[in-house]
Amino acid sequence: MKESFFFEILTPQEAKARFFSCWKEKPRPHEFLPLEAALGRVVAMDITVRCDLPAFFKSTVDGYAVRAADTFGASEGLPAYLSVVGEVLIGHPPAFKVGPGEAAWIPTGGMLPEGADAVVMVEHTEPLDERTIEVKKPIGPGENVIRPGEDFPEGAVAIEKGRKLTPQDIGLLAALGVTEVPVVIPPKVAILSTGDEVVPPHVDPGPAQVRDINSYTLGAMVREEGGIPVPYGIVPDLYDPLLDALRQAVEECDLILVSGGSSVGPRDLVAQAIHALGEPGVVVHGVSMKPGKPTLLAIADGVPVVGLPGHPTTVMIVFHVFVREILWKLLGLRSRPRLPVVAKMGRRIASAPGREDYLRVMLEERGGELWAIPLLGKSGLISTMVKADGLVRVPLEREGLEVGEPVEVWIW
Amino acid sequence: MKESFFFEILTPQEAKARFFSCWKEKPRPHEFLPLEAALGRVVAMDITVRCDLPAFFKSTVDGYAVRAADTFGASEGLPAYLSVVGEVLIGHPPAFKVGPGEAAWIPTGGMLPEGADAVVMVEHTEPLDERTIEVKKPIGPGENVIRPGEDFPEGAVAIEKGRKLTPQDIGLLAALGVTEVPVVIPPKVAILSTGDEVVPPHVDPGPAQVRDINSYTLGAMVREEGGIPVPYGIVPDLYDPLLDALRQAVEECDLILVSGGSSVGPRDLVAQAIHALGEPGVVVHGVSMKPGKPTLLAIADGVPVVGLPGHPTTVMIVFHVFVREILWKLLGLRSRPRLPVVAKMGRRIASAPGREDYLRVMLEERGGELWAIPLLGKSGLISTMVKADGLVRVPLEREGLEVGEPVEVWIW
Repeated sequence: MKESFFFEILTPQEAKARFFSCWKEKPRPHEFLPLEAALGRVVAMDITVRCDLPAFFKSTVDGYAVRAADTFGASEGLPAYLSVVGEVLIGHPPAFKVGPGEAAWIPTGGMLPEGADAVVMVEHTEPLDERTIEVKKPIGPGENVIRPGEDFPEGAVAIEKGRKLTPQDIGLLAALGVTEVPVVIPPKVAILSTGDEVVPPHVDPGPAQVRDINSYTLGAMVREEGGIPVPYGIVPDLYDPLLDALRQAVEECDLILVSGGSSVGPRDLVAQAIHALGEPGVVVHGVSMKPGKPTLLAIADGVPVVGLPGHPTTVMIVFHVFVREILWKLLGLRSRPRLPVVAKMGRRIASAPGREDYLRVMLEERGGELWAIPLLGKSGLISTMVKADGLVRVPLEREGLEVGEPVEVWIW
Repeated sequence: MKESFFFEILTPQEAKARFFSCWKEKPRPHEFLPLEAALGRVVAMDITVRCDLPAFFKSTVDGYAVRAADTFGASEGLPAYLSVVGEVLIGHPPAFKVGPGEAAWIPTGGMLPEGADAVVMVEHTEPLDERTIEVKKPIGPGENVIRPGEDFPEGAVAIEKGRKLTPQDIGLLAALGVTEVPVVIPPKVAILSTGDEVVPPHVDPGPAQVRDINSYTLGAMVREEGGIPVPYGIVPDLYDPLLDALRQAVEECDLILVSGGSSVGPRDLVAQAIHALGEPGVVVHGVSMKPGKPTLLAIADGVPVVGLPGHPTTVMIVFHVFVREILWKLLGLRSRPRLPVVAKMGRRIASAPGREDYLRVMLEERGGELWAIPLLGKSGLISTMVKADGLVRVPLEREGLEVGEPVEVWIW
């Protein structure tokens, strides 16, 4: 066993700063996926436009392709008369030109005939006979037309490296003809539960035993963020088996999550084992937040290791505050990952300054407004965690929150 | 061909009301999935608690299990003296009892020994010698203890039918020993693109042609909501092939999405073919919203069919306004599915009253506040759709939105 490390309580901000200053990320490998399978994945390199989008002068309305100059001065009383020389068929390049004084029917999405530089909406025209229309409004060059490259010019970056692909990105990639997408290979996240009282969910717990909750909650949270959870099961509260399991996890995975050790003895055991894994070892042990004070952040030869106190709710909160951000870095994510919902605080809450409090809240709609109702109760209860829609943070410097004040709710 | 149907413009609310009053949902089939695979799925039946959770009197802190009555009147100056009769080991039922004047060490999560009814936190005790502690604060019966069934009593409904499983639900199911979860089988959603100008993404478009975007955007949106997209490819603008493809889709799927037909001719063709599919046929054709006016809602012998105007952005907006809700019903979803983000409007926007306008907006953080910046530009541009973080609705009765007014942004 290594000698004991310094135990110092940091604020959540300080803890993050120290952790990220100690951690040197390795570049993430990538793979190519078919477009249909790339939703929610993070793009591994800039994707550039290979051909102008659109590739041709394209009408955005149903109407007549014209030379704009022919409509200058046109009005209800003094319309411009144009001869119809053809009809553009959707999907086909027109085989004719539009000369001065001429027009051609064109549908939305149709390709402008040579000579035309604008499209008059059908609503602003009137047929005079089979071959002639009246135009009752002047139109400027380029009106109701998208020019080649106006949407995305050739060579432009269409999707930047680090973006998590949304449905509209998938549509854009289809438009660009990118059918195989370079995406970051998701990090593998080892999940270990500790505790002599913990049994797997398929086992009927004996007296004084409980089923493993944290492995499953953590696995689902990891999956939700885009990581691959790798379960390492329940490790007994003994130094050697714990160290062996952790060593294997560090070898096989990109991030290690160890939950449990809620009481003092096993907690120290977990800390000692994590510290022995590699350099620099434990860099944060103790954070001024509630719940989550015994949170532990470590790095073992480049692999981040997080020790989460064992209460199920605490596990979720520590994941929210620290693990998400580590995962985002491992995923190569650069786009904005999540946004809070704003609600009014439904109840006065007192809090000790110098500590961040995380409240579980339920959202309620009252007269069109969203209210955040704090769920109080013993921290060991799973029921409040399941009833809660999300978390509200009471900032470090505040002594509480007032009824009606707007708060940010992080949906979980 | 059936005779033409009534074309009447409805508000989005009226359109939904008419559609949902015409549609009789069939009950959805369910399947059993292993717990690890159930995240994000909708529970098909109420899940009840088979055994009290927790199953035993459980300490929520590290400390001493005592009889509360022995601590009454205890203070710093006049502590209660208790003899330590044992140590509770985590995961093991204690083999001893706590009698009057006695105490036993107990860790967080430990099972209370017979006779004890409360736990004094270690911080409020002082060891006197090997076998005696001082308790310096009175404690009430039940303090720092979770009693059997306090979290979830036997027989209670832990997770209600229709809930979309979150990570914390997965944790709760683990706690309850539910390793096979009954979930709704996701609906199959047929996706058809129409348009003679449209080619698949792997093809280099010829002059006047464009690649299929809508199938891919719609497929990803369906997947994001929990449905299974079934691509039916690109159907030409001809009545018979269109009707054949639609008939096959109605036979094989639970919801049909047809995009395209942006110009008048093909749009009517799509409407006629949809109306010929089954009873009652088209129930909504034309909605007072922008974009999305030519939206079509139909039911063919119980299967909902939505016709979406072909511009890529319009497709996304019509999906947001109409398709999501249909999908949620098909998924059996009863929990709150999505919440908007509140931001301040970044620019004055004019809008015609009597019509709902949907603005694409980008979110920007300025001095800790979120601002919604509308992205203007031709409706055919994909670039604005990709840059947009979400949608803002200008209500029917409003003539626009003012700078700085709070708006709800629906992230997409």
